[in-house]
Amino acid sequence: MSQDIFGKRETVEQVEEGTVLAPKFDKDGNIPCVTTDYKSGELLMHAYMNAEALAKTIELGEAVYWSRSRKVIWHKGATSGLVQKVMDLRIDDDQDCVWLRVDVQGGASCHVGYRSCFYRSVSFGANAKGQAPVQLKFEETEKVFDPKQVYGDAPNPTKL
Amino acid sequence: MSQDIFGKRETVEQVEEGTVLAPKFDKDGNIPCVTTDYKSGELLMHAYMNAEALAKTIELGEAVYWSRSRKVIWHKGATSGLVQKVMDLRIDDDQDCVWLRVDVQGGASCHVGYRSCFYRSVSFGANAKGQAPVQLKFEETEKVFDPKQVYGDAPNPTKL
Repeated sequence: MSQDIFGKRETVEQVEEGTVLAPKFDKDGNIPCVTTDYKSGELLMHAYMNAEALAKTIELGEAVYWSRSRKVIWHKGATSGLVQKVMDLRIDDDQDCVWLRVDVQGGASCHVGYRSCFYRSVSFGANAKGQAPVQLKFEETEKVFDPKQVYGDAPNPTKL
Repeated sequence: MSQDIFGKRETVEQVEEGTVLAPKFDKDGNIPCVTTDYKSGELLMHAYMNAEALAKTIELGEAVYWSRSRKVIWHKGATSGLVQKVMDLRIDDDQDCVWLRVDVQGGASCHVGYRSCFYRSVSFGANAKGQAPVQLKFEETEKVFDPKQVYGDAPNPTKL
């Protein structure tokens, strides 16, 4: 299965109101992907797919991303075992963003060891008034796994 | 309130495990933002913020984006009345993505008129086998509002 499973983008009406998958990849060849937990609705991660990764996700029914830092196709869970089984796959109005609703085998999606990558909340409104810099609060207090045990000496994907 | 409310990105440990908001903007000055419904967990939209938009969102407690197509600060709801009240604001592990959990006044977030921008599901796995191009299925069948009445002749943001 390859990129020829995608339709052509011919008119705005077809893209917005049609029934053919015709995704828009950005100038680097990527489309952003939002991944939420199928049961809780929690946002687990935000990543990117290239055409090959999206085609593989559709074929396998498991999340496959494009790692921009490592520049490789990234079948999520290949290292950690934390495979994301796709329960629902959506595309947005202008077809430049993918939404995966997944069931995570193992319960965690974040390379730091938390359940979700979004484990900290940001102060806003009255709570942030006068704060410089703005403060974060941990919403998850315990890691689901120890990243050192799972990833060993693999380089950390976080870049400054 | 301006960009000086953000902390500096000094070490990977500080970015991932610290309590200071130190967001990473991409080479165009933007950070992607995932916006979900506070109650249902449904993904409403995926957009971008620049530093000014993120600072304004933190200040107002309402979603403010950067429109890449119109190249303007975009206080969501200013035209349509469909303001997104921020109930929870999260940042991810490497602080290069924002998650807003919002309460939408008016119940719709999509310029095409649907509740969510992600109103179509994509066939995958056994259901997609042999499909070229891959087919979409409408998961929302009725629009919440008529975009012509709300936006009039404003240019459609969808680009081919």
